[in-house]
Amino acid sequence: MTVLSNIVISARVRRSPYFAATQRYGCKAYSVYNHMYMPLYYQSPEADYWHLVNGVTLWDVAVERQVEIVGPDAARFVQLLSPRDLSACAVGQCKYLMMTDEAGGIVNDPVLLKLAEDRFWLSLSDSDVLLWAKGVAYGGGYDVEIFEPDVSPLQLQGPRAAKVGEALFGAALNDLRYFWFAEFELEGMPLVVSRTGWSGERGYEIFLQNSADGDRLWEIIMEAGQPHGIAPATPSAIRRIEGGLLSYGADMTLENNPYEMNLGRLVDLDQEADFIGKAALAEIERRGVERRLVGLKIEGGPAVVPALERAPVDHGGAPVGRITSSVYSPNLEQVLAFALVETEFNDEGTVLTVEGETGPLGATVSALPFVSRKTV
Amino acid sequence: MTVLSNIVISARVRRSPYFAATQRYGCKAYSVYNHMYMPLYYQSPEADYWHLVNGVTLWDVAVERQVEIVGPDAARFVQLLSPRDLSACAVGQCKYLMMTDEAGGIVNDPVLLKLAEDRFWLSLSDSDVLLWAKGVAYGGGYDVEIFEPDVSPLQLQGPRAAKVGEALFGAALNDLRYFWFAEFELEGMPLVVSRTGWSGERGYEIFLQNSADGDRLWEIIMEAGQPHGIAPATPSAIRRIEGGLLSYGADMTLENNPYEMNLGRLVDLDQEADFIGKAALAEIERRGVERRLVGLKIEGGPAVVPALERAPVDHGGAPVGRITSSVYSPNLEQVLAFALVETEFNDEGTVLTVEGETGPLGATVSALPFVSRKTV
Repeated sequence: MTVLSNIVISARVRRSPYFAATQRYGCKAYSVYNHMYMPLYYQSPEADYWHLVNGVTLWDVAVERQVEIVGPDAARFVQLLSPRDLSACAVGQCKYLMMTDEAGGIVNDPVLLKLAEDRFWLSLSDSDVLLWAKGVAYGGGYDVEIFEPDVSPLQLQGPRAAKVGEALFGAALNDLRYFWFAEFELEGMPLVVSRTGWSGERGYEIFLQNSADGDRLWEIIMEAGQPHGIAPATPSAIRRIEGGLLSYGADMTLENNPYEMNLGRLVDLDQEADFIGKAALAEIERRGVERRLVGLKIEGGPAVVPALERAPVDHGGAPVGRITSSVYSPNLEQVLAFALVETEFNDEGTVLTVEGETGPLGATVSALPFVSRKTV
Repeated sequence: MTVLSNIVISARVRRSPYFAATQRYGCKAYSVYNHMYMPLYYQSPEADYWHLVNGVTLWDVAVERQVEIVGPDAARFVQLLSPRDLSACAVGQCKYLMMTDEAGGIVNDPVLLKLAEDRFWLSLSDSDVLLWAKGVAYGGGYDVEIFEPDVSPLQLQGPRAAKVGEALFGAALNDLRYFWFAEFELEGMPLVVSRTGWSGERGYEIFLQNSADGDRLWEIIMEAGQPHGIAPATPSAIRRIEGGLLSYGADMTLENNPYEMNLGRLVDLDQEADFIGKAALAEIERRGVERRLVGLKIEGGPAVVPALERAPVDHGGAPVGRITSSVYSPNLEQVLAFALVETEFNDEGTVLTVEGETGPLGATVSALPFVSRKTV
């Protein structure tokens, strides 16, 4: 990560209910995500990474704003918003979704929580799905309410997350399967806890439903985590790239479709229900995509990473794509990247050249994930 | 302004075509706006302010992303998106708009540019109107295309802006009336130039239509401005609060309606055309609003400002509202703020108490703008 400059407190940008805690615990850098300050690292991205992969970490991810959709037509409306067949989704289940526009472009890649047959949360990446969903509902005659509830998630991630979770919520938490959630109470606070996360490690998301309790919840978890060496941390660019997890805004935007992201498994064209982008995605599936996201292993050490931002990728001197994300993995001792490249060059082992700002670097197309996800 | 922490370069956040120039010219702080880095100040907010009010300044406001709406139904569709009657809007004219949702809540407050009878730009504040507009169009059967064009505005603002504009575009620029635009060419670059801005001073917006020319355009303007003492600057929190200009996200959000912002003049309930929120706004207008944005003059010097962010406002010990924006005006030597307060307490001269983090401060409701807008 390259420090760009100062960020300045502004009334325009919202603060998370955990903001004071992140300041108190020494968060050193923030960005802005869904119009809210998002913590970026505490000790350093590398030190935070080692806490995550070797221990347990607590992240303020209140920036994952929720859109709640509730009402008699909620299930039909949520299905309209996503190509993934949700007909078998049970109450208590989470689903990672693509949301697409009429051209099949990706609007967001949220996690859906089915709270009841007629009540859902979309836990968002960085785009105003509240406006998108309200716009789609306008004039469509759906009997739904769509709003941003007072819900602010934390992530508890790392190999020791289960121990901390058990200390907080009891052994019952161990029954929670991957991508399921349950409701718990902690010192009078009603919480939704899901076995999900954006780390590639074992972990949970804990959804607070009253902003005023943010500081209290943070401290209770920190105290329970103390015996297990818990550290404050943030979504780790290193671990998520190792784990092949995509970041909306960097690796995919409205200009991309799920097939380019190798996420065709999240597009169910054969379902009876209609969804936005169905015809366009069927056509894209039929004729195939022209570019595809790949993993790249790039020569050089951590010093080359700043020069790689959105760098062009060549083959034999001809441009074939560009980098979307890059990082140095201190674990693999290797520069890792995602790149969007022409499909002709997407096979594992293909040797490409990254035209970084400080000169060309050799790069090899590699299988994803670079490091397996340890979610059990 | 309080420096919060570092901001870190991320591939997730877009860079403006002028980003390299802002770095070269010593921009010291950035935020994120419409998923793009937004410059916050160069020398200091105060020094930049004096350049603006005494001379001429150039701002990178590429974060004002454009949504283009084009096609046979474009005029009808744009009208649907805004309560302001646009039936008399001419090609070449700009209009400051509220965009509202079905409940009358403010989605954005863009400037509209009518490029042709069937082609419009919405020059945005910080929310994803692209998604909102596409959502509304979905299933509505409108024959329109909606997209984000490659358009990146600069603002040239300050009492000497007219001199620099004349040097760049010739005396014809002086014929441009307030809130009108015209097309110009500069060294082969087609530009739209409007007599608009967010400074309360005389000024222009210059809309580049090819990102690759960003650095070249910036330098051409800087060179033309040299004899007039041009300085790089940014949207000035000081001058915009002095001038009574509102900031979306701080002073108003989806939770507010135009009447609360004293912008009922931008809601034309009597027009024949339908627009989103018409019924809700008619009802709000009928029963009156319960809270209203006011100007406050607050006791104390610049040191009190950091403690005022979203601070509660009391009257006789009872809460009556909260601060939405605040700043120290080095010109008036006075702390100025906007606050959203119960209408019972919105009369000029009402004395209130701001419960800042460092203790209570006296505040007096004051007429807006605090300083007149010098737009001629």
